[in-house]
Amino acid sequence: MDKSNISKPTLRRLPVYLNYLKSLPEDTKTISATAVAGALGLNEVQVRKDLSAASRSGGKPKMGYDVTQLVADLEEFLGYRSTKSAVLIGVGRLGGALLSFKGFSECGIEIAAAFDNDPAKIGTAIGDIPIYDIRELGEVCQEKGILIGIITTNPTEAQTLCDKMLDSGILAIWNFSTAHLEVPDGIIVHNENLAVSLAMISHALEERMGTTEE
Amino acid sequence: MDKSNISKPTLRRLPVYLNYLKSLPEDTKTISATAVAGALGLNEVQVRKDLSAASRSGGKPKMGYDVTQLVADLEEFLGYRSTKSAVLIGVGRLGGALLSFKGFSECGIEIAAAFDNDPAKIGTAIGDIPIYDIRELGEVCQEKGILIGIITTNPTEAQTLCDKMLDSGILAIWNFSTAHLEVPDGIIVHNENLAVSLAMISHALEERMGTTEE
Repeated sequence: MDKSNISKPTLRRLPVYLNYLKSLPEDTKTISATAVAGALGLNEVQVRKDLSAASRSGGKPKMGYDVTQLVADLEEFLGYRSTKSAVLIGVGRLGGALLSFKGFSECGIEIAAAFDNDPAKIGTAIGDIPIYDIRELGEVCQEKGILIGIITTNPTEAQTLCDKMLDSGILAIWNFSTAHLEVPDGIIVHNENLAVSLAMISHALEERMGTTEE
Repeated sequence: MDKSNISKPTLRRLPVYLNYLKSLPEDTKTISATAVAGALGLNEVQVRKDLSAASRSGGKPKMGYDVTQLVADLEEFLGYRSTKSAVLIGVGRLGGALLSFKGFSECGIEIAAAFDNDPAKIGTAIGDIPIYDIRELGEVCQEKGILIGIITTNPTEAQTLCDKMLDSGILAIWNFSTAHLEVPDGIIVHNENLAVSLAMISHALEERMGTTEE
């Protein structure tokens, strides 16, 4: 199976299928692409195509997919079954919320450490994630072999911290700040921009209310 | 200008341009599409197309865009200049982080009220946003003419709360829970799914590390 040819829209839908499959009653043994499409309000042909791209075992005619196997296939495909270590910088409200978020481990990501520059926070922990002085970033990252850096600081500090992370061997940045980050080729940046979501909602709402045509 | 024909990828990029333009030094009077593309690492033709779709005034040959005017055009286009009221349900860590988020008003969204079922939280406020008993949802929404509902509860309660919001006249749901929400035609649902971001990062990382080909 060649994972590199998968389209971004398909990749966005796979965790949605996975989430739905996990929410099914435990005695659900098999499910058809038609049923998945119906439940999620998606196009059936699309669902069939997505699932066959990600599932090694495939569905059986008239039987559909074995739910347990399909869950395993999707998790394997999405890389959830090999754990990758991450650090988080900026233990404010958003950072704190992310440190408490239970969904990381299910996605194969473990936050190994958090960093802040507030003396009141350094040396404490959220859950079992220790909070270190930001000056220890390089040392901790190298020691623990960290691959993913999560930035939840304000935008003015983001680029400097991003550079430090890359110097410490980090390959992927999950950026919650509004800063635009400059990175060398080959480094992954995923921007989580609430303003983009707000724009999509605002725009859809204006259209819905019929105020868009001028 | 017909806003309804705009593509989702363009709509996703517009707030990124806006954010970049606002970060420019104050004495920057004009900017070319080439400069914007260079700074954001985007394709120049794409940037030119995006900006001309959203900007009423347009760029001038050799001069580029007037920065102040372009900011105004983008804000107008994105619906940031007409304020829409929202409520948030579920004042946990994530809910609290969103209530403290300063970016809403810039995007034309005002959170008018929050709701929870925890007696310790009801009657308090975060910033100047009051927290009400969840049983008052319908009444408050109708009274304040709320259009947007933000759900930050756990997934088991999400559908019930979504239905209550729609009964109270809400037209757009911003769903931070992992629940799949069923809504009638014409209702806007925007799912903010951290697991999807995690999947994109995990997948890109596995590809980057060369472990994807089997």
